[in-house]
Amino acid sequence: MKVTILYGPRDVRFEERDAPKIIKPTDAIIRISATCVCGSDLWPYRGINKVNQPTPMGHEYCGIVEEVGSAVKTVKPGQFVIGSFFVSDNTCPHCQFGYQSSCQQREVVGGAQAPLLRVKLADGTLVATPEVPSGDLIPSLLATSDVMGTGWFAADAANVKPGKTVAVVGDGAVGLLAVLSAKQMGAARIIAMSRHETRQNLAREFGATDIVTERGDEGVARIKELTKGIGADSVLECVGTQESIMQAIHSTRPGGHVGYVGVPHGVELNGQQLFFTHVHLHGGPAPVRRYLPDLIKLVWNGKINPGKVFDLTLPLDQVAEGYRAMDERRAIKTLLLP
Amino acid sequence: MKVTILYGPRDVRFEERDAPKIIKPTDAIIRISATCVCGSDLWPYRGINKVNQPTPMGHEYCGIVEEVGSAVKTVKPGQFVIGSFFVSDNTCPHCQFGYQSSCQQREVVGGAQAPLLRVKLADGTLVATPEVPSGDLIPSLLATSDVMGTGWFAADAANVKPGKTVAVVGDGAVGLLAVLSAKQMGAARIIAMSRHETRQNLAREFGATDIVTERGDEGVARIKELTKGIGADSVLECVGTQESIMQAIHSTRPGGHVGYVGVPHGVELNGQQLFFTHVHLHGGPAPVRRYLPDLIKLVWNGKINPGKVFDLTLPLDQVAEGYRAMDERRAIKTLLLP
Repeated sequence: MKVTILYGPRDVRFEERDAPKIIKPTDAIIRISATCVCGSDLWPYRGINKVNQPTPMGHEYCGIVEEVGSAVKTVKPGQFVIGSFFVSDNTCPHCQFGYQSSCQQREVVGGAQAPLLRVKLADGTLVATPEVPSGDLIPSLLATSDVMGTGWFAADAANVKPGKTVAVVGDGAVGLLAVLSAKQMGAARIIAMSRHETRQNLAREFGATDIVTERGDEGVARIKELTKGIGADSVLECVGTQESIMQAIHSTRPGGHVGYVGVPHGVELNGQQLFFTHVHLHGGPAPVRRYLPDLIKLVWNGKINPGKVFDLTLPLDQVAEGYRAMDERRAIKTLLLP
Repeated sequence: MKVTILYGPRDVRFEERDAPKIIKPTDAIIRISATCVCGSDLWPYRGINKVNQPTPMGHEYCGIVEEVGSAVKTVKPGQFVIGSFFVSDNTCPHCQFGYQSSCQQREVVGGAQAPLLRVKLADGTLVATPEVPSGDLIPSLLATSDVMGTGWFAADAANVKPGKTVAVVGDGAVGLLAVLSAKQMGAARIIAMSRHETRQNLAREFGATDIVTERGDEGVARIKELTKGIGADSVLECVGTQESIMQAIHSTRPGGHVGYVGVPHGVELNGQQLFFTHVHLHGGPAPVRRYLPDLIKLVWNGKINPGKVFDLTLPLDQVAEGYRAMDERRAIKTLLLP
């Protein structure tokens, strides 16, 4: 089979590799129905994370179970499943507290931009849908594998509650789905920070009530202006740069909450400065496995349609163009069909 | 009257100054019954915070109201009152959210190590006791002005709940009262990190169930060992150095909470490292005014006795010795009587 391999900055190849096999009794093999390119794939693609060796890419996936190991009990061949980008046993203490992405047996998924994927710890990682979905549901179900779950965690980590004022930093797919999540959680006011018209439009469709185009200190000043000088109750940081996280922290009212899900790159927080902001700070890799059952239900029942963030669909063999389009911000997010 | 002035590193003088007067209609003048030296007074005393000019010292206070401005409504001459180390209007949005130490009109109190003190925004800052207390209650009532409220905020910010496992970093007066606070909030297990026998004993008296003498990475390893490799649910950081805050963060389980109240000095948090710890982080200057009514009640009813942290009592004119004893760790905390 042919799979996606990153060789170095902007060097994505679609190459022949052996099909994966069951190795451990807790493994499952999935035939991928759809996969996609993640914003975090752009870090190594752009050379910001170093690529030390040819690396199989992709960690967002859904599809039909082909085969399971002898110890797998909760999913079986023929079922449609979705899994998190971190495998988890879902039984260790950290999993039981709802932090499956810090599972004691956690491993990052790789190689999902391919026709077949081996998923370790299948019982603790995969969730089956009630039945095999129709094709139109697949983009939104795929989104629950990472980008939707990550936006949801941003809102949850930022303590979004009914009636609250929320600001979202970042208008990538995660930021847009953070808007949708805040809306689902009942926020009264959702301020999306974006300077791209198509993204602004999608943010509004997902529930944004205000758009702020300014960034950095000017963005902070604008949020303060919109909130009578107080700051937002909850700010959802979906980028991961020094500028974006400081923008998030300073847009939050004292006692308010920052949820940060953009993997920080080159971010240093000055302790004393943070201290006097009085904000709550929580984030990290989203514990998608915690949210999957509920998010699948919301998609299944048509309550949310996170698949709208996919504005480019390509056959898997054109994956390199999928990366290019996102890198150049021509696409918000690329869906890939094997 | 004679007051305490810091001229530079280890140069505390007790000098003649004019008695304070009512300047604004929202002011009150208090005759100090007792004051004390704060751990944070040691930062400038040790030259770690620069002293640019002779500075009146002291921000922990209680006493009898001498006089109030024409706009003051909630306290009156003759009442015994306690106030926070930050003045607050207690009406602005930040105050209403319970963050009086981020009040829009906040100002830090100074000059309380003196016989008389002018307190601005008296209505929003001071809380009167039911009646003038007997002398034996005064040390514990004084403690609510800062050190007890700060320990309480550490526990509150770290989300201490009944049945939880708590670790406390720092065995100064704040750390010891953080132990007492965690006990009051129903923690099942309280691990105090201390290598000083007298402080260990007081920690045990306040509710510590375990003592850890190791620091840094070894301290973290010991906490992990005591919690079956999981980490504590809540860690209360009461020091403010890079080592102590990293010790707190790494002693916390993923999804657990760090409450930090030691004013950070030279602390830089790496964003990516923090991200993958999955901890909640909250802290800052304690909103003592929020807690004062409840803490006063707990002291008044004999439920808590935070005044036990004062292990040295001196007449105010020996204030310089009070600083020296704390600097050299001969005393946990010095009570000063005008």
